[in-house]
Amino acid sequence: MTGKNQRLSTQPYKGARDFYPDDMRVQNYFYETWKKVCLQYGFEQYDFPILEPLEIFSAKTGEEIVNEQLFWLEDKGGRKLAVRPELTPGTVRMIAQRYKEIPQPIKWFMIGNNWRFEKPQMGRGREFYQLEANIFGIEGVEADLEIFSLIADLMKAFGADENMYEIRVSDRRIISGLLENQMDLDQNLQVKVRRMMDKRSKMTQDDFFASLKDFGLNENQITIIENFLYATYDSLDIDKNNPGIQTINKLFELLNQNNLDKFVRFDPTIIRGFDYSDGLVYEVFDKNPKNRRSLFGGERFDRLINIFGDYTLPSTGFALGDYTLLEFLKGWNLLPQFPSRIDYFVALWPSDNPEFLNKSLEVALVLRNSGKNVFTWMEQTKLDKQLKYADKKNAWCVLIIGEEELKNNTLTVKNMENKTQKTISFENMLSELE
Amino acid sequence: MTGKNQRLSTQPYKGARDFYPDDMRVQNYFYETWKKVCLQYGFEQYDFPILEPLEIFSAKTGEEIVNEQLFWLEDKGGRKLAVRPELTPGTVRMIAQRYKEIPQPIKWFMIGNNWRFEKPQMGRGREFYQLEANIFGIEGVEADLEIFSLIADLMKAFGADENMYEIRVSDRRIISGLLENQMDLDQNLQVKVRRMMDKRSKMTQDDFFASLKDFGLNENQITIIENFLYATYDSLDIDKNNPGIQTINKLFELLNQNNLDKFVRFDPTIIRGFDYSDGLVYEVFDKNPKNRRSLFGGERFDRLINIFGDYTLPSTGFALGDYTLLEFLKGWNLLPQFPSRIDYFVALWPSDNPEFLNKSLEVALVLRNSGKNVFTWMEQTKLDKQLKYADKKNAWCVLIIGEEELKNNTLTVKNMENKTQKTISFENMLSELE
Repeated sequence: MTGKNQRLSTQPYKGARDFYPDDMRVQNYFYETWKKVCLQYGFEQYDFPILEPLEIFSAKTGEEIVNEQLFWLEDKGGRKLAVRPELTPGTVRMIAQRYKEIPQPIKWFMIGNNWRFEKPQMGRGREFYQLEANIFGIEGVEADLEIFSLIADLMKAFGADENMYEIRVSDRRIISGLLENQMDLDQNLQVKVRRMMDKRSKMTQDDFFASLKDFGLNENQITIIENFLYATYDSLDIDKNNPGIQTINKLFELLNQNNLDKFVRFDPTIIRGFDYSDGLVYEVFDKNPKNRRSLFGGERFDRLINIFGDYTLPSTGFALGDYTLLEFLKGWNLLPQFPSRIDYFVALWPSDNPEFLNKSLEVALVLRNSGKNVFTWMEQTKLDKQLKYADKKNAWCVLIIGEEELKNNTLTVKNMENKTQKTISFENMLSELE
Repeated sequence: MTGKNQRLSTQPYKGARDFYPDDMRVQNYFYETWKKVCLQYGFEQYDFPILEPLEIFSAKTGEEIVNEQLFWLEDKGGRKLAVRPELTPGTVRMIAQRYKEIPQPIKWFMIGNNWRFEKPQMGRGREFYQLEANIFGIEGVEADLEIFSLIADLMKAFGADENMYEIRVSDRRIISGLLENQMDLDQNLQVKVRRMMDKRSKMTQDDFFASLKDFGLNENQITIIENFLYATYDSLDIDKNNPGIQTINKLFELLNQNNLDKFVRFDPTIIRGFDYSDGLVYEVFDKNPKNRRSLFGGERFDRLINIFGDYTLPSTGFALGDYTLLEFLKGWNLLPQFPSRIDYFVALWPSDNPEFLNKSLEVALVLRNSGKNVFTWMEQTKLDKQLKYADKKNAWCVLIIGEEELKNNTLTVKNMENKTQKTISFENMLSELE
């Protein structure tokens, strides 16, 4: 029991969010728009637990998330569980579980909450919601084309066009072409250098060079890497038979034929932080000059399913988060207003006569049965106070049943927008309210 | 990295659920129905983090949940966090945070996931989703009347009527009247005896009597308690001025006037397991002879907000879980079928000519822009296999653009239900498909 002097904090855990009704309407706008567009692409929704076996992340998610950012616990049986930091491994776990039963291709999406122990900052918290959308079972880059088309239609549903964002794309096999085939670095060193390359845009050149030197690279090697990162498609010094290059070529051909190339450009600095990315990688960037940052990303991860079984599964998709989407929409002034959803406010005539409450509830019942959202006042309160409340809640219409109305089986309708009022019969309420 | 011989399990954590698309459509039916009915009552949706400060549960949730069933962890700063086992304390935390700003009454609902470490069994797991709906700021039993009306309309939205369930109601102040005023037990003993009374219906009489004896009660006291639990309203030996009795009286008067009494009956065995219940308590029971169990419950908890501040707030509401709802609906054969949502399946003519894919995507674009859900086949595959897939996905219509169709700017429409087909022009596609 808590004593008088030991009040608990009313704040949520640091970096996590309370959604009051105003905030919740924004979240619902996100969730509903995500869902609507994914369904239009014939994607099916799924879900899985927010607590997952820890080991599915330690396999291939990447060391920063697993070693530094994971929220995890042991249950009373000693089982280690992670609060999921991302949605891809659990998705692949579900597919692997019914690998032989689910007809391919599989087009799936989910909306879920993730947790990472990061320093809370503007536009980033310790928990976030994501839309995860993937296509499984299509080897060809046509699957990635469809993913890019889905991304463009998602952004369009929020009002964004090609002037506001761009998809920057590369391929992990191009990075391998550089680090493995061209520079002949060993496997471990490749991973370290690749992770550092992924951070390049957030570092100074001096720091980047110093880090690579620490890994044992010589000046010539460092120059090759720096040149690679700043290359254009044409100046890129990579064997044109590299499968990554060929995928990029084919992708742009398709994008071009389908009028989607305006959204996409090749960018060799795109690498992605996950260990499981193994083909095409892409990130969607805000073009807002005040906030040119990565909004979200995606990749091929054909071999992630390997952690569950001895097979591969062509896999491609992305995860779009609510935090960055919100910042993006605010930056471009694309976030709509979401007013309260009360259609009718039924006032309660302040009187000891129980007939007033009964009639109020009867009116509410009729309106609710016709699909309306109705708030009923339930206490004996001065009418003034009730009207003030209705105004705060943006009710567009207040219904009042007073002494006269009760006697005549009518109601007075007060339009809160144009401040007019009229009296209508209870019998014809629905048609008269139209 | 995982080697060839260390494959990870594809199962979710024991007692937690994967929702494949078929299952997810059922979940969405629950969530959407919950939301629709709550909005019709003018309730507003909110949400808060699934990880909450541990101490908000240890205060008043009850020892079984906190000591035995809580999933909890320490973050890297040593902060203890609980994976929430229920939604009420977090809700009250949010209200307390803006106690002075939010106009009362407050009618709020949320849909959220909870975790408890229980033995997984039929109809119960370690995680579950709940609808939590409450009214804050109304002292009178009119608030509870509205909650009961909301419950009846929720059940009605799922097809259930008064023959299928009943709300059994009592009041914690009646229990106090017995244990404190009438029997004069000390505070600690009251809590112990009350918790045992809450479990009475799951115990034999012998075990129940033995437990009370262990607490130090004499035979006379035990008989009084047993008689209390099996009393009817009329045979109940409690002072009729008890505030709980008066609340029950007033409640039934209102229920009666509003034709809701058919759903509700008084039952002195209703006690509830939470420490914070402090007035009316109720549980909704399945009337199915094969499964007469409690589906969900609710209560008054006017003093729970005390853990956050030195004030009380009239509070009443309930939480309805997805597990028991599913069992209930199955038991009464009320669970609808939820077929796949693909409106159109656009086949891809197997050919090297890229024009076929481009045309497919163009067709999909037009249909999606008109709000339809469209699955596009993206690979060169035999038409047979594509049609088989479309059939499995319950697509009701397959669109085919073959050599002739491409030349004439038409498409062939195959109705998968009545097996008819016709050719229509691309230009008038939308109107011809109606």
